[in-house]
Amino acid sequence: MTNKRSVVLISGGLDSATVLAYALSGGYETTAVSFDYGQRHSIELESGERICQHYGIERKVVNLDMKQIGGSSLTSNMKVETRSIDEISESIPTSYVPARNTIFLSVASAFAEVLDADTIFIGANAVDYSGYPDCRPKFFNSMEDTINLGTKRGQHSRLRIAVPLQYLTKGEIISLGMRLKVPYDLTHSCYNGEEEACGECDSCLLRLKGFMDSGFRDPVKYKKYPDFYKKYIGKSVL
Amino acid sequence: MTNKRSVVLISGGLDSATVLAYALSGGYETTAVSFDYGQRHSIELESGERICQHYGIERKVVNLDMKQIGGSSLTSNMKVETRSIDEISESIPTSYVPARNTIFLSVASAFAEVLDADTIFIGANAVDYSGYPDCRPKFFNSMEDTINLGTKRGQHSRLRIAVPLQYLTKGEIISLGMRLKVPYDLTHSCYNGEEEACGECDSCLLRLKGFMDSGFRDPVKYKKYPDFYKKYIGKSVL
Repeated sequence: MTNKRSVVLISGGLDSATVLAYALSGGYETTAVSFDYGQRHSIELESGERICQHYGIERKVVNLDMKQIGGSSLTSNMKVETRSIDEISESIPTSYVPARNTIFLSVASAFAEVLDADTIFIGANAVDYSGYPDCRPKFFNSMEDTINLGTKRGQHSRLRIAVPLQYLTKGEIISLGMRLKVPYDLTHSCYNGEEEACGECDSCLLRLKGFMDSGFRDPVKYKKYPDFYKKYIGKSVL
Repeated sequence: MTNKRSVVLISGGLDSATVLAYALSGGYETTAVSFDYGQRHSIELESGERICQHYGIERKVVNLDMKQIGGSSLTSNMKVETRSIDEISESIPTSYVPARNTIFLSVASAFAEVLDADTIFIGANAVDYSGYPDCRPKFFNSMEDTINLGTKRGQHSRLRIAVPLQYLTKGEIISLGMRLKVPYDLTHSCYNGEEEACGECDSCLLRLKGFMDSGFRDPVKYKKYPDFYKKYIGKSVL
């Protein structure tokens, strides 16, 4: 038995599923927290539920309508742009949701306080990422200071924000997840929010490149595959 | 005309009404943001609406159910404790809502980004306050760093968290508000959330003491008055 407790932010995507498996493998008693924030790909919430059921852990879903804030293609009618895999990370894309991780981690810190958890896990990544400012290591360091100053718990013991995938490439994340037996078939990464992934948005491209780099094949179905992945699945894969 | 824009967090209480008047007097084009977070004193939301109508400004109400987080007498069935005016500030009371200001300021930073506002005003106070960790100056400094790191806007121009009442006593806040003609009759401070203020909770006691110290009389109705205020209103007041 363990007395380590954690809160894990679960979107339903590949990274958060991997980070959940990582927290559980570390012996943390874990509560998952997801947000219904008006994301167009709200299908990820169902994926999150299936992942939590797979692991038999409790999940809290917090309703917070970010549509009324706007400013993002993920929460409005703005089109999610498509760009080539090489263009990703060159600029902040329209899928950026203003202050999303700040908001998510704030709410997670409230849950952590009430559940007496000492660690918040988040599946953010600063290598193969979409250029969001709130995925950078210096953001998380500052946020950790802030939540410790802003909570009662932080006055006597430190609450930690753990970002274990921070410095891994997408390929390395998938390699780690495969060792941890993450049910990637249950995850949903596509921004467009249909049952079948589009294979064109940043999120699909980064995911497929990650599977290619790790030597595995993505178990999820796609409407179409980018050329680089077509060449790859022509070869034999794990 | 001005091109200064601000977001002001409005609860419906005395401090936030004063800070709104302060921002407007400084020439800021202002959008108010309020939270329907499951507070037992949700009547304060109506006060907030009346205050914004009084000033003719737009208000956004964000729904975020903090009841499911729990841990506070303001969002659960826990009783709001009563203590004497001298006991306030000795410990963090049950009315503390985990990470509330962190969450509110996170959401405000998202609005500020989308509205191109350069300042978020919050009516927090570190003198006559209830001992909440997220009302301390060092919390706000850290939060300001965090929201600048976590938003797109923060990459090119600084978003400021302004806490103009931070170092004022409640009496000084009321003196300032009276000069700014704040409609204190429209405000609601009592934690118990009935139309008529209880006159017993921390919030009522701090408010009444503030009016006493400022030399004014509180225009709001109370069910009962604490002894110190009874003695005071026995005298002639402004």
